Amino acid sequence: MRSLGFIRCAGLISTMLLSSIAMQHGKAAASPHLRLMPVPAQISVGEGKLVLDAGFRVALAGYQEPRIQKAVGRFLQRLQQQTGIPLSDKILSDEAQATFTINCHAAGEETQSFRADESYSLETTPQKARLSAPSPIGILRGLETFLQLVDLDDESFGVPVVKIDDRPRFVWRGLLIDVGRHWEPIEVVKRNLDAMAALKLNVLHWHLSDDQGFRVESKIFPKLQGMGSDGRYFTQDQIRDVIAYARGRGIRVVPEFDMPGHTTAWFVGYPELASAPGPYQIERSWGVFDPTMDPTRKEIYKFLNSFIGEMAKLFPDEYFHVGGDENNGKQWNASASIQAFKKQNNIPDNHALQAYFNKRLLEIVTRHGKKMIGWDEILHPDLPKNIIIQSWRGQASLADGARKGFTGILSYGYYLDHILTAAYHYQIDPLDKEAASLSSEEKARILGGEACMWGEYVAPENIDSRIWPRNAAIAERLWSPMEVKDVRDMYRRLEFVSRDLDAMGLTHRSSYPSMLQRLAGDHPMGPVRILSDILEPVKYYSRGRAQHYTSVTPLNRLVDATRPESDAARQFEIQVDQALAGRSAAKPSFQLLRERLIQWRDNDARLKPIVADSFLLKEVAPLSETVAAVAGAGLQTLDYIEAGKAPPDDWKKEQSALLERAKRPQAELLIMIVPTIQKLLDAAAK
Amino acid sequence: MRSLGFIRCAGLISTMLLSSIAMQHGKAAASPHLRLMPVPAQISVGEGKLVLDAGFRVALAGYQEPRIQKAVGRFLQRLQQQTGIPLSDKILSDEAQATFTINCHAAGEETQSFRADESYSLETTPQKARLSAPSPIGILRGLETFLQLVDLDDESFGVPVVKIDDRPRFVWRGLLIDVGRHWEPIEVVKRNLDAMAALKLNVLHWHLSDDQGFRVESKIFPKLQGMGSDGRYFTQDQIRDVIAYARGRGIRVVPEFDMPGHTTAWFVGYPELASAPGPYQIERSWGVFDPTMDPTRKEIYKFLNSFIGEMAKLFPDEYFHVGGDENNGKQWNASASIQAFKKQNNIPDNHALQAYFNKRLLEIVTRHGKKMIGWDEILHPDLPKNIIIQSWRGQASLADGARKGFTGILSYGYYLDHILTAAYHYQIDPLDKEAASLSSEEKARILGGEACMWGEYVAPENIDSRIWPRNAAIAERLWSPMEVKDVRDMYRRLEFVSRDLDAMGLTHRSSYPSMLQRLAGDHPMGPVRILSDILEPVKYYSRGRAQHYTSVTPLNRLVDATRPESDAARQFEIQVDQALAGRSAAKPSFQLLRERLIQWRDNDARLKPIVADSFLLKEVAPLSETVAAVAGAGLQTLDYIEAGKAPPDDWKKEQSALLERAKRPQAELLIMIVPTIQKLLDAAAK
Repeated sequence: MRSLGFIRCAGLISTMLLSSIAMQHGKAAASPHLRLMPVPAQISVGEGKLVLDAGFRVALAGYQEPRIQKAVGRFLQRLQQQTGIPLSDKILSDEAQATFTINCHAAGEETQSFRADESYSLETTPQKARLSAPSPIGILRGLETFLQLVDLDDESFGVPVVKIDDRPRFVWRGLLIDVGRHWEPIEVVKRNLDAMAALKLNVLHWHLSDDQGFRVESKIFPKLQGMGSDGRYFTQDQIRDVIAYARGRGIRVVPEFDMPGHTTAWFVGYPELASAPGPYQIERSWGVFDPTMDPTRKEIYKFLNSFIGEMAKLFPDEYFHVGGDENNGKQWNASASIQAFKKQNNIPDNHALQAYFNKRLLEIVTRHGKKMIGWDEILHPDLPKNIIIQSWRGQASLADGARKGFTGILSYGYYLDHILTAAYHYQIDPLDKEAASLSSEEKARILGGEACMWGEYVAPENIDSRIWPRNAAIAERLWSPMEVKDVRDMYRRLEFVSRDLDAMGLTHRSSYPSMLQRLAGDHPMGPVRILSDILEPVKYYSRGRAQHYTSVTPLNRLVDATRPESDAARQFEIQVDQALAGRSAAKPSFQLLRERLIQWRDNDARLKPIVADSFLLKEVAPLSETVAAVAGAGLQTLDYIEAGKAPPDDWKKEQSALLERAKRPQAELLIMIVPTIQKLLDAAAK
Repeated sequence: MRSLGFIRCAGLISTMLLSSIAMQHGKAAASPHLRLMPVPAQISVGEGKLVLDAGFRVALAGYQEPRIQKAVGRFLQRLQQQTGIPLSDKILSDEAQATFTINCHAAGEETQSFRADESYSLETTPQKARLSAPSPIGILRGLETFLQLVDLDDESFGVPVVKIDDRPRFVWRGLLIDVGRHWEPIEVVKRNLDAMAALKLNVLHWHLSDDQGFRVESKIFPKLQGMGSDGRYFTQDQIRDVIAYARGRGIRVVPEFDMPGHTTAWFVGYPELASAPGPYQIERSWGVFDPTMDPTRKEIYKFLNSFIGEMAKLFPDEYFHVGGDENNGKQWNASASIQAFKKQNNIPDNHALQAYFNKRLLEIVTRHGKKMIGWDEILHPDLPKNIIIQSWRGQASLADGARKGFTGILSYGYYLDHILTAAYHYQIDPLDKEAASLSSEEKARILGGEACMWGEYVAPENIDSRIWPRNAAIAERLWSPMEVKDVRDMYRRLEFVSRDLDAMGLTHRSSYPSMLQRLAGDHPMGPVRILSDILEPVKYYSRGRAQHYTSVTPLNRLVDATRPESDAARQFEIQVDQALAGRSAAKPSFQLLRERLIQWRDNDARLKPIVADSFLLKEVAPLSETVAAVAGAGLQTLDYIEAGKAPPDDWKKEQSALLERAKRPQAELLIMIVPTIQKLLDAAAK
């Protein structure tokens, strides 16, 4: 019985995957999933542990290559960092002398594909550990598992005795990072690749161009980045560097050049590509814009042939993402020549015109040795079946494609910029809903999914906090068996993942206090944090409704600092549920609720002098007052509950009205304890 | 009246340096030193501020070079990070369009020396800012000052209207980093160079060899690093990279190769250099060891001529540090041939033999175009006056040298590894004590000082926390006028410095919670932190008395995580002083003391289950119990004080005995609230 996390979920743990559990030894026995995330396909936990001390040595057996050696070097660095024990960085070749033997059976693909074998097995005894895999990628996955197993107890650091046989459920597990809208420099991309590798994700979907920026150096068409990026683009050397970095971590890099829409930034340098005359300027606002490539002109395809040829050489992945989403058709409708072309060629509508464009695009992509992937909109019966459809529309759209013979991946439900909970994303399954009724052959066409980090409201400072740790829940959904879906246990393990990522250099945790301190100026930031801890940014597309944003609007307000998911509010809800259910002795649990509510109620007075000195905090003054009022209502409600008295109707009405008001966004933020106070109020009324 | 920091020190601020203060505008008027550290030579604060917004643009005037352009690039990055406002990174040449004009008058020295002009003037109005300096180094200093001026208020980010004329008091302001004992990789060195630049320090004294490691690649004698470093050394390319990095920040790099003692690591590869036959192994323990170069053999000087020739080319600085400290003479005394040499050459003792060695060393150093610097021990009347003596012995030794005509710098009192307070270091002045009575000509021979970060008990993980923020107090002592010595105001500003360094990527703050979390394992680390916050590691050379350490002993215990200076204990003492002095209304201030004491008393019970699960925390169990007892004694004492009753003698005796016991180190840690509880007890007795 070691952690609060464990105590909370002990009753709920699924044991279905265990072949044997030793019941004597607290921790190993307590949770079959230990701290592992994603949960492996098969794990059995035995008795005892392998002690980790300064004598820990690694040997390499079997097939070897620099990628494995470098991965072992990083592994040793991180193990040293986790334990604080100086470790020898010399890799042995004699298994007998080693604590941990790593045995790779054969070289993998030169260029990793979704057919890569990522499986591995990891076995530990009290004396030794052994990791085996058919390919280097499996070794990479197994090393991450090993690091998640390391823990300390009353004797030493160690790894529990386990036998793990692991492989992913889906072969395509991606993260889209949009560097078109807000620029994200190379270090942001690299640290997110580190995090992806830790969670066993295997595709970086790099959204490299959009209306607001063209982010790759083209040597053939230098005005693309030269006029379309404000000087914020990746050189080809940097691209190659990122690809090598990703390959070293078992991650493919799929580039996306979104077309024919989302292309304003292309047209700044090359207005002749557009369906309406220029000149064009880099778009600074957010939304769906009119500028669209003209699919009726030969020159377009000549341009794209050269451009895609150049990019096909730069990006080794077999897939090339052509976007294809959100073409509003306005420029096409307004163009007489395009209308004439449609008539002449019997193209009935804009969807068909886009299919025509896509067919020609597919020819070009194919000519350069690539396969095509695009968003739902490219799905058209005229297109061949070897394209991949990325669905932002949902499992119905995905299933529809699969029935028609198209391969697909799911992004619906995985939009990180919607600022939803890890629990929400966790329950979205590519093979659920409409996809559940597919035949097994059709199901096999659904390769996996991708989380999407669209760039409207993220700067390098806060992008990590919008991706992590929530994305780990998606990573688990795509790797682990479908049956792994205990939300409480997911949250327990997510906390460890979040810590590990912080130690690896991700900034999802560290940016929070520093952004809050900026808001607080010379004042201590404590009261700002107490407020912020129970807030969340508004959801879905609500951001920007109260205020106009552009790509140069500072993202330095409370809404930019506040975490996407309030742990404090979630824990408060759990405590209220427990108190109301009488699961724990009522007195102390009510006392705990009272203490929290008092802190929230009294925080406004402490916050006021800080707000008075900070122009950035001005907007949250009413919000803070609302929190104080809501917490006050909660305290009064507790009085009624503890006294066993039903509150008067007038009072209830008043409180309900207050809570209704408190649900509305203020300063683009939501007060996340409101539903729980409502729950208390409902309980009091009974 | 904006920050707690300010409220505490408002009555104490020195105003001697101000030529004018606008009294209407709270903050600017409140503290003439604002957040500036080191305090400038001259500052006047006017009315109003220069607003910083997205329109902020920089222009360069006068002399230009890449070093200035790159510095402006970093400046804009940091300004963007401080404000969260996206700023244009395009540097203008038209002053009229710029918010901030930077005007460098001329190129500085190609290789920076201690004669470099570091002065600058910075003037801001509500419309514009202007930084002028005779050389690029002054521009670098002024940019750091500008960043420290940035703050937010109820309207905007801005910089107060100021006129600053600044120059350093001492020309040699250094930090020694010992990479011989524990290896510190290049990123540790670089981030500390960033911090040094922020505090206007100008010398990195790089201690590159010692008994435990030889850390530089020699191409002529590759066994130096090949056999003397466990593979942990800087390549010559890395050295050049660090030197360029330092130069870009106005910092000289002075290499130290300590000899004739502290040379075990040299002898692993080249035993023929030693005064006793080998073989030698890399030393793993700490202390003063016997292996010493043999000064009587010609081959030594041939070797050193080649080696120093190689290093003199690698390190461009005009000074070359030869160490010279702590030669215990045992190998010399035991060698018949050395004894014979001494007799033959009329060398009376080992000190004279070392002077003989140094004279020959000086010839070599001079031949390669360098000047010599060494520790106190090299001081000998036979040596010429153009060497620099670095004094670890104190102002008396320094003054002695200055009277004899030697140039010197002070390190006594600046040993960061002694784990003393910022206030202690702050009051050590190179021209104080025995040096105060020197003539002005003699005083001019004292060039400044250097803080020393010796490497026995620092790993890359915690070295920053041993250097910063305390080293900022030394930096201020060496830069600012001698009269700047208000300790409370120094601590107020130190907090801002500490935040800024954290934002720049130093790990002195962030390593603390992560190391505590490691100790706490799966448990929340809160109770570990509450305990740790009032502890400090043992002082001076006490570390290692209770336990034997080697260079591979893990530095992962509480003593390695705990901060060198307990802010919580310091603040508690201030609060007790205020409560006892009746400065604030007694009731609330006693209530505050009570709350703190209750938290410390009750923490032990919360810590116990964590300790039970962590082998690393076992050793602090008794310490935690002592803290609980001491806090309990404090609470009882408060009862007596508030009741106005004198406590009984027996009880007093018992408490005094408890406090005496509590003063003793446990787990190499000290409980820093003990003296303050003693103070309470003394007050109660009156």
